[in-house]
Amino acid sequence: MARTKKYNAFYAQSGGVTAVINASACGVIEAAREHKDKIGKVYAGRNGIIGALTEDLIDTSKDNKKAIAALKHTPSGAFGSCRYKLKSLEENRAEYERLIEVFKAHNIRYFFYNGGGDSADTCLKVSQLSEQMGYPIQAIHIPKTVDNDLPFTDNCPGFGSVAKYIAVSIREAGFDVASMAKTSTKVFVMEVMGRHAGWIAAAGGLAAEEEGDSPHIILFPEIAFNQEKFLKRVDRCVKKFGYCAIVVSEGAAYKDGTFLADAGSVDAFGHKQLGGVAPVVAQMVKEKLGYKYHWAVADYLQRAARHIASATDVDQAYAVGRAAVEYALAGKNSVMVTIDRKKTKRYGWTIGEAPLDKVANVEKMMPRNFITKDGFHITDACREYLKPLIAGESYPPYKDGLPQYVRLKNVAVEKKLKKKFKV
Amino acid sequence: MARTKKYNAFYAQSGGVTAVINASACGVIEAAREHKDKIGKVYAGRNGIIGALTEDLIDTSKDNKKAIAALKHTPSGAFGSCRYKLKSLEENRAEYERLIEVFKAHNIRYFFYNGGGDSADTCLKVSQLSEQMGYPIQAIHIPKTVDNDLPFTDNCPGFGSVAKYIAVSIREAGFDVASMAKTSTKVFVMEVMGRHAGWIAAAGGLAAEEEGDSPHIILFPEIAFNQEKFLKRVDRCVKKFGYCAIVVSEGAAYKDGTFLADAGSVDAFGHKQLGGVAPVVAQMVKEKLGYKYHWAVADYLQRAARHIASATDVDQAYAVGRAAVEYALAGKNSVMVTIDRKKTKRYGWTIGEAPLDKVANVEKMMPRNFITKDGFHITDACREYLKPLIAGESYPPYKDGLPQYVRLKNVAVEKKLKKKFKV
Repeated sequence: MARTKKYNAFYAQSGGVTAVINASACGVIEAAREHKDKIGKVYAGRNGIIGALTEDLIDTSKDNKKAIAALKHTPSGAFGSCRYKLKSLEENRAEYERLIEVFKAHNIRYFFYNGGGDSADTCLKVSQLSEQMGYPIQAIHIPKTVDNDLPFTDNCPGFGSVAKYIAVSIREAGFDVASMAKTSTKVFVMEVMGRHAGWIAAAGGLAAEEEGDSPHIILFPEIAFNQEKFLKRVDRCVKKFGYCAIVVSEGAAYKDGTFLADAGSVDAFGHKQLGGVAPVVAQMVKEKLGYKYHWAVADYLQRAARHIASATDVDQAYAVGRAAVEYALAGKNSVMVTIDRKKTKRYGWTIGEAPLDKVANVEKMMPRNFITKDGFHITDACREYLKPLIAGESYPPYKDGLPQYVRLKNVAVEKKLKKKFKV
Repeated sequence: MARTKKYNAFYAQSGGVTAVINASACGVIEAAREHKDKIGKVYAGRNGIIGALTEDLIDTSKDNKKAIAALKHTPSGAFGSCRYKLKSLEENRAEYERLIEVFKAHNIRYFFYNGGGDSADTCLKVSQLSEQMGYPIQAIHIPKTVDNDLPFTDNCPGFGSVAKYIAVSIREAGFDVASMAKTSTKVFVMEVMGRHAGWIAAAGGLAAEEEGDSPHIILFPEIAFNQEKFLKRVDRCVKKFGYCAIVVSEGAAYKDGTFLADAGSVDAFGHKQLGGVAPVVAQMVKEKLGYKYHWAVADYLQRAARHIASATDVDQAYAVGRAAVEYALAGKNSVMVTIDRKKTKRYGWTIGEAPLDKVANVEKMMPRNFITKDGFHITDACREYLKPLIAGESYPPYKDGLPQYVRLKNVAVEKKLKKKFKV
C-alpha cells in the first residue's frame, strides 16, 4: 500500500493585524495537527511574507497545545506581520521565484496566507508561478481585514470585533456626554479607521437604537463632506437632544477628494501635521458653533481590543483558519475561504470559497442603500447586515485584572539555502 | 411612643462622570429604600447641584427596583452632572441660602454629594451654613474622581476602572505594534487623562510585567519633560525591543510648566489648536528620530468604559454610596466616606470616614517613590498600590452584542418655591 506523502505548510500574517487574526492562526495549526499523516509541520513566516523571502521561518510545533489554543484569545499577529506588497510578476519575478525556492527547500506544499486584498493577490501569484515552475503549491487565502472590504465573503474576520468596539465605545461616550452637556461638553467626536470604506464608521451606528441615541451623526468616506450641512445638523442635534455625538471615518473627505484630516493643522514649524480628523472636525464645531467639545482617536486600540471582541468574529476567524487546511487537504488551490451568510431569518453562516483570481484587488464598498439619504447615518438594511457580526462576547482569561495574552516561543527553523535574499 | 421623624434625602453627581458613579447612586438609593421608616424619598439633582439651586429635583422613587439595580452597571451620570463650582460663602452666600431654602421646602435633611475635591468643599459649606441658618442638614460627601487625587481615602471610586481600561488598552496596543514594527509603526503614543496628577498614566505601567513589555515609557505630569532624554530613551527602546509604546498624561509639561499639548500646533488660520499631547509627542519622534508612529487619544472612552470596569472599583463605588446613607442615619455630618486599605498581605478594604474640613481643596499627588528614578516608569511600590484596584471583571449585561445601560425616567418633583433662581 502506498504511503501518503507528507508535506509541510507555510502560514503567514499580512498587513494590519486584528483582534482575531491569531484565532485564524490557531485554526490553521490545530487543524494541521489533526492531520499529521498528511501535514508535517506548520512553518510560520516571521514578520509575514518577509519571513518566507528571507527564509526566516518559525517552527510552530515548538509551541504546545495550550499555547496554540491561547492564540484564540490573543490579539495582534503572533508571528509578526508586515506591510510588504510583492511587486507584479513582471516587475519582480525574482521574489516569487525565491518563495518557491524556500518552499522547495523546506518541503512546503501548502501556502496559507492570512490577509486582505493585497495578500489575496500575492497568494494568487504564488499559485500561478508554482504551476509555471513545476513545483506544486496549494495556495489558500485566509481572509482578514478590519476594513471589511473583501469581495465574495459576506464579511471579513477582524471586522466584527472592531465594529463591536466602536459601537460599545460610542454608546458609552454618548452616555457620558449626555450627562455633562448641561454645563460642559456638548459635542463629542470619535475618529475611527477606514480610509476607503465606511464599514467601521457604520458600525458605530448600531449603538443608536432609538431617536436621540448616540451617535447622532456619522461621517462616511463614501459621502462628500459638506461643512454647512454638517454644522446645521450638529446644531439641530444639540438643540434637540442637548448634545451631539459624532463618529467620523479617517477617510472622510471633501467633494474634491481632499481628506478632512489633510485640511488640518500645521505644527509650530509650519509642517503639516499628520493624522487626526477628529480634532479637525471638533475645531470646526467650536469655531462655527461655539460648542464645547471633546474628541477621541481610538487608532490601534480599536483593532487590538480583544477584551471586547465579538464572539461571532472569533468563531469565524477560527473557522476560516481550519477551513483553509481542510480545503488544502481536499486538493483545492488558488481559493479564498469565505464566510457565507445563510438565507435564514435567524442569522447563520457557513464556510465557502471564492476563486482567487476574482478576489484579488477588488474592494467591496458600502452599498449606497446602507447609508441614509441625508448621508449622516445607517439604514435598517445596514443595521440588519451588521448586527449579527458584533453578537456575543468572547472574553479572554484575566489575571490580576489584566487579560492574559500568549507570547509564543517563535523558534526559528534552521536555514537550508545558502543564498541570502534582501527585502 | 414617639414616632421617628422621616426626612427626605438629596443626592447629586458632580464634575466629570465615571464608569461607576452610578454604582454609588445605586448604593445610596438602595440603602435609603431599606430605611423607609427614616428616609422618605431620595431626590436627585437634575444636572448636579444646579438641580438643587433651580429646584429641579428628580423623584427617584418613580424608578423601580430593577432600574435602580441597573445603575450598578451603567456608566455616566444617570441624573446629569455639572461643572459648577459654588463660590465661597463670602462671595455668594445667596447660593448656599438658596440650597437650604430648597431643602427646607422639600423636607430634605440628608445631603449626599458625589464628586471630587470641589464638591467636598461645597458639601462642607452646606453643612456649615445649615448650622448658621438653624436648619439641620447632614452633609455626607461620597468620593468620586478618575483622577484619584482625594486625600484620606486610599483610592477614589472611578479611578480603578479607568486604570484598568488604560492598562488593558496599552497592553493590547503594545501587542499590535510589536507585530507591525518590522516594516511599519515603531512608536505608539497613547494619551490619557490626568492634568495634575499622574495616577492614570501610572496605571498604564501595570501592563508591563516583564522587561520589554508595553508600555516602555510613561510621561507623568509630575516629571518635567526633557526632550533629549526622552528621545534617547525612545531610540534605545526601538533598537532593543523593535518598538516603543508610550503612555503620556495630558498634563505632561516642560520644566517651566508649559503643557506639551500647548506647545503644539496651530490650525490653517493660525489659531492655536486645543488638546492632543499625543500627536505632539508622536510628531516629535517622527521629526527627530524618523520612526513611523501611531497615536491614540482615549478621552471620554476611558472614563465611560463600563464594559471593562474593575470589579473592585464597582464594589467600592457601591459601598461608599451605601455607607453614606448609613453614616447619615448614624447621625454623622460633614464627613467624606473613605476607602481604607487593610494592613493585610492580601488586599482588603473597609469603609471609613474623614472630616470634610480636612478633605476640601487638598489634592493627593503621586508620591515620588511611585515613579522610577529616571522618571519614565512606575516602581514596585506603585505597582503594589495599583494592582488590587484593577482586579476583577464586572461585565454589564449584553443584548445583540451591545451593553444594556439603563436610562431612568427622571420624573421631576413638583416645585414648591415661587422664587426662581438663575445659575
